[in-house]
Amino acid sequence: MRHLVLSGMFFLYAAICGHAAVTVYVDDVAPENCRDYTPVVQDILDSHPEGNVRIVFSGREYHFHRTYAKGRYHEITNHDNGYKYFAFMLENMKNVEIDGNGAEFIFHGVMTPVLIENSENITIRNLAIDWEEPFFIQGTVIRSYPEEKAADIEFTGFSRIQPEGNRLNIVSNDNEMYFLGESMVFDPATGAVAYNAHASTIGGTRGRTAECVRISGNTYRVKAEFAKKPAGEGLVYVFKGPNGSNRLAPAIHAKSSSDISMEDVTIHHAGGMGFIAEKSEDIHLDNVDVRLRDGTDRMVTTTADATHFCNCRGKVIIENCLFENMLDDAANVHGTYLKVDRILSGNKVLAKLNHRQQFGYDFADAGDRIRIVDAVSILPKAEVSVTSYRQINEVYAEISFSDDIKDDIAVGDGLENISWYPELYFRNNIVRNNRARSILVSTGNKAVIEGNTFSSMMTSILFEGDLNHWHESGAVNNVIIRNNRFLDCCYGGNNAFVIWINPRVSEMPEDKYFEKNITIEDNIFNSFDRPVVYAKSVDGLIFRNNSITPSGTYPQLRPDMPEFDIEHCRNIIFSGNRYNGDSQAEIKIDSESEKSADFRKNSGFADICTD
Amino acid sequence: MRHLVLSGMFFLYAAICGHAAVTVYVDDVAPENCRDYTPVVQDILDSHPEGNVRIVFSGREYHFHRTYAKGRYHEITNHDNGYKYFAFMLENMKNVEIDGNGAEFIFHGVMTPVLIENSENITIRNLAIDWEEPFFIQGTVIRSYPEEKAADIEFTGFSRIQPEGNRLNIVSNDNEMYFLGESMVFDPATGAVAYNAHASTIGGTRGRTAECVRISGNTYRVKAEFAKKPAGEGLVYVFKGPNGSNRLAPAIHAKSSSDISMEDVTIHHAGGMGFIAEKSEDIHLDNVDVRLRDGTDRMVTTTADATHFCNCRGKVIIENCLFENMLDDAANVHGTYLKVDRILSGNKVLAKLNHRQQFGYDFADAGDRIRIVDAVSILPKAEVSVTSYRQINEVYAEISFSDDIKDDIAVGDGLENISWYPELYFRNNIVRNNRARSILVSTGNKAVIEGNTFSSMMTSILFEGDLNHWHESGAVNNVIIRNNRFLDCCYGGNNAFVIWINPRVSEMPEDKYFEKNITIEDNIFNSFDRPVVYAKSVDGLIFRNNSITPSGTYPQLRPDMPEFDIEHCRNIIFSGNRYNGDSQAEIKIDSESEKSADFRKNSGFADICTD
Repeated sequence: MRHLVLSGMFFLYAAICGHAAVTVYVDDVAPENCRDYTPVVQDILDSHPEGNVRIVFSGREYHFHRTYAKGRYHEITNHDNGYKYFAFMLENMKNVEIDGNGAEFIFHGVMTPVLIENSENITIRNLAIDWEEPFFIQGTVIRSYPEEKAADIEFTGFSRIQPEGNRLNIVSNDNEMYFLGESMVFDPATGAVAYNAHASTIGGTRGRTAECVRISGNTYRVKAEFAKKPAGEGLVYVFKGPNGSNRLAPAIHAKSSSDISMEDVTIHHAGGMGFIAEKSEDIHLDNVDVRLRDGTDRMVTTTADATHFCNCRGKVIIENCLFENMLDDAANVHGTYLKVDRILSGNKVLAKLNHRQQFGYDFADAGDRIRIVDAVSILPKAEVSVTSYRQINEVYAEISFSDDIKDDIAVGDGLENISWYPELYFRNNIVRNNRARSILVSTGNKAVIEGNTFSSMMTSILFEGDLNHWHESGAVNNVIIRNNRFLDCCYGGNNAFVIWINPRVSEMPEDKYFEKNITIEDNIFNSFDRPVVYAKSVDGLIFRNNSITPSGTYPQLRPDMPEFDIEHCRNIIFSGNRYNGDSQAEIKIDSESEKSADFRKNSGFADICTD
Repeated sequence: MRHLVLSGMFFLYAAICGHAAVTVYVDDVAPENCRDYTPVVQDILDSHPEGNVRIVFSGREYHFHRTYAKGRYHEITNHDNGYKYFAFMLENMKNVEIDGNGAEFIFHGVMTPVLIENSENITIRNLAIDWEEPFFIQGTVIRSYPEEKAADIEFTGFSRIQPEGNRLNIVSNDNEMYFLGESMVFDPATGAVAYNAHASTIGGTRGRTAECVRISGNTYRVKAEFAKKPAGEGLVYVFKGPNGSNRLAPAIHAKSSSDISMEDVTIHHAGGMGFIAEKSEDIHLDNVDVRLRDGTDRMVTTTADATHFCNCRGKVIIENCLFENMLDDAANVHGTYLKVDRILSGNKVLAKLNHRQQFGYDFADAGDRIRIVDAVSILPKAEVSVTSYRQINEVYAEISFSDDIKDDIAVGDGLENISWYPELYFRNNIVRNNRARSILVSTGNKAVIEGNTFSSMMTSILFEGDLNHWHESGAVNNVIIRNNRFLDCCYGGNNAFVIWINPRVSEMPEDKYFEKNITIEDNIFNSFDRPVVYAKSVDGLIFRNNSITPSGTYPQLRPDMPEFDIEHCRNIIFSGNRYNGDSQAEIKIDSESEKSADFRKNSGFADICTD
């Protein structure tokens, strides 16, 4: 019934826009015994170059191969740019609906199932996306040799490996990667990232030096620079190849588009993110699961984030979703900082993109408002409008402004596009079993995170502006985190706090704060470890009516850290919280933050400890 | 005086085209103490978007960095496609002259000095091109361990290596390659590729398995799968990284352009070819040297061909040039075969590019004449005109024809674009000391090769159409090879004949011949080894008035092979040739070819041997 209503709305929208949407039933136009639906879909789209079309599948399996897919060089933020192939290539289209009716789409090859570019009112519903062959390899530790820094790993047959010299090539979707590269350890007993997995990973560069010698069958002795020691017997390694070449094929990419809706979509896998949107407006994901296929032996869904939004605006709504077993975050909402490289004239600068996976990013258009932030403190210095933006190459762009800005700007300062931040609603979702964080929030507009259940191997909610590594922008102004359940998280061993408000600033000026107005209320924290919230550089942090109960699931990794750690904050309200542990919870707060802090009606807390 | 005349012609041309060319003296517009001329040149070109400009340097050193160079994804035939950076980016321009006045241009970074695209009447003169850092590494064999398949190699300081695990990364122009990759052996005593170098190379894939352990300083023990044995002490290895990532930065790329002239230009180095032209018309290279800088320690100039012409037309004239120490041929003139992948309708096919380094090649335009050739014999089946050409992706294109061709075509057949072949004049050039061949000739139009001196480690002149590896098209019709000196060649050990007419066809139909009308006359052959000419599938081969004298330079590699080997040919004239060896020269000819052969007035030859 709900779908009928939504479809009706789609037609209404199309009708208002003056175009009657045509419905094409794929099974009616496909050749008999069709083995590759890529050209079929392409023909349909070619016949409707402006859109106004519903493409309807029946609830069965459809295979899509890369061979005859449309291709071109394509830049995807937070991925590896390159020559890309697409199955559904929606460019300059309006009013397109892809309705799977429960179909399963199986992809073959390094390709992106759906591209939505310069398009509007696009709906994808009722379908599942998977790949015949995964973009990672997986193997169980048969024997572990901590002293020899080695482990015997028996690789599964569902992905392809190819020994060459003393390496193992990963052959995935006919793409060869010459190194094991980035790794993660999973525990088959929990189906999640293993407890303290971080200690047994092989880092990015180090993944290029692992030596692999065949022991028997599909079992190899892998000798490597493990962070601390190889994972124990029975645990499962996943390798996805080296950084820089392992984010090639996200499932759905939206760029410079608006009114994008996904409903009842399942993404079982992708060689990159599940849904990545950049410079797009009004996006609604409802019941979009990134989850393992029932009964699968695979430990991993997407090899990067489930969802990711860079400089989107309007409303980003993510609700009723299950995000599990990704190799990166469930959602990351942010903007991208450019850095001032040279001041060319009073109103013109040369600016630089700084992270390889942001190269080619189309940062701004004429009319956009840009905030100039200080090179060191990343605090605002001025705001100005863009009159022209011209890419010199994938790294550098020339930006002209409406006003003379030479007194407000210095080489090294950051530039963020404040015309492109969304309101964010992340609600009633479940995040679990994945590598990395649950959600990263960097938007100056309202953000509401409620009714979710979080359990990731790192921090659940991370706030982290920085101008020195990821270059992700978006100091917050109005965040509400309520009615969530924070179950065990940070069990991977490399993050500590459940909520981590940590703008990466080394020097913080007095009376200036990067983040503003974060309310954390009515949540349940149920964690094996002590740390709950770290907050740095926040003006207006409310933590109230939360319940904190140790879970006892794992041995504590940080028994000496406090539950709360507050630094350089102002206007803290900490009230009505209940700690239900055997001992009392500890709050560490610096004297500056304590001045304006208001603690009351909390139970189970020790005296405030200031330094 | 000659330059004044030429400059005058340039201005005359510009004047005829209705545009007065403006002269810009770079030193007048550059900032003081300019360290990077890339933005300076870019500003000049941006100020003259239609061209009509002479850009004049003074005879000194200019440095060009990649940092602020214009960039975009760019396909270059017979290279590795990718995101490219350009110093002189000539697009949609007419009447541009770059006059170095003897300047030396030193490049920094993976970039292409000059791009000429959709442009006409472009002249480059009086300058030299080099890179601060070469795209290869070089090292001398200190000790050789044939039994252990190892050699201790002391690498030079002029290129950067970075040990990682048991590999050596090549760090060139800030680009990291993780394997030694393709290799060649040079002899410092001759400054050329070493005698029988082929036996000591490490092949492409095998270059990924070499193990390198540091012995001391810059000396590493390299254990590898040498073709036969490691090179002896004192010989020099050059490694350029693995195939697929070592042709990134040719010096000059011309694409879809016409009237291109280079005079008095020296290319000391490039990370790819020296001059690569595709789909371009009327090209004149006069005194364009690809040669080592005087006094350099480097063994290598360009890491691929000195010059290369794919589907060019009009006249290609290459004269008075010195081509030395390249890691590939001096010149390769050919077209590119596509293969019929599917017949879509009576006049429409899906066609495929087959070699990775041809991906994205813009094969044809409406109006071009296409020859359909048989999948097995590569002999002509029909000719037809293109009405539309549409790339689906970098591998596949949809081609529509003016006529119904379904009776003339089968899946697997080749397609060649016969509207795009040049007349070729290759005269008064010297080719020496390089890896691979001197020149490859594949054009259906007149080709004259005269007055040259050839001495390459493989075949001097190769004719080789094929539809199974390189997919290079261009059966010849009218070739004259005269007054050349063929000195020692094929000394590298992997090619045998000085002139090798060898279309790659396994089954040859009777009375059908791939090549036609090749005249080889008045040449001097002065080679250490026995084989001189191999000819297969030629109708009309004249070999006359040539003088052949064994050089004695090296021990013979092929003492049991005949001087001449003729197979499946017709209308052979072999007359007036003189063999000046101690014994008699041998001609091996099959009975089919002998039927129409005419042998007379030769001296120093044994009786004809037929099989």
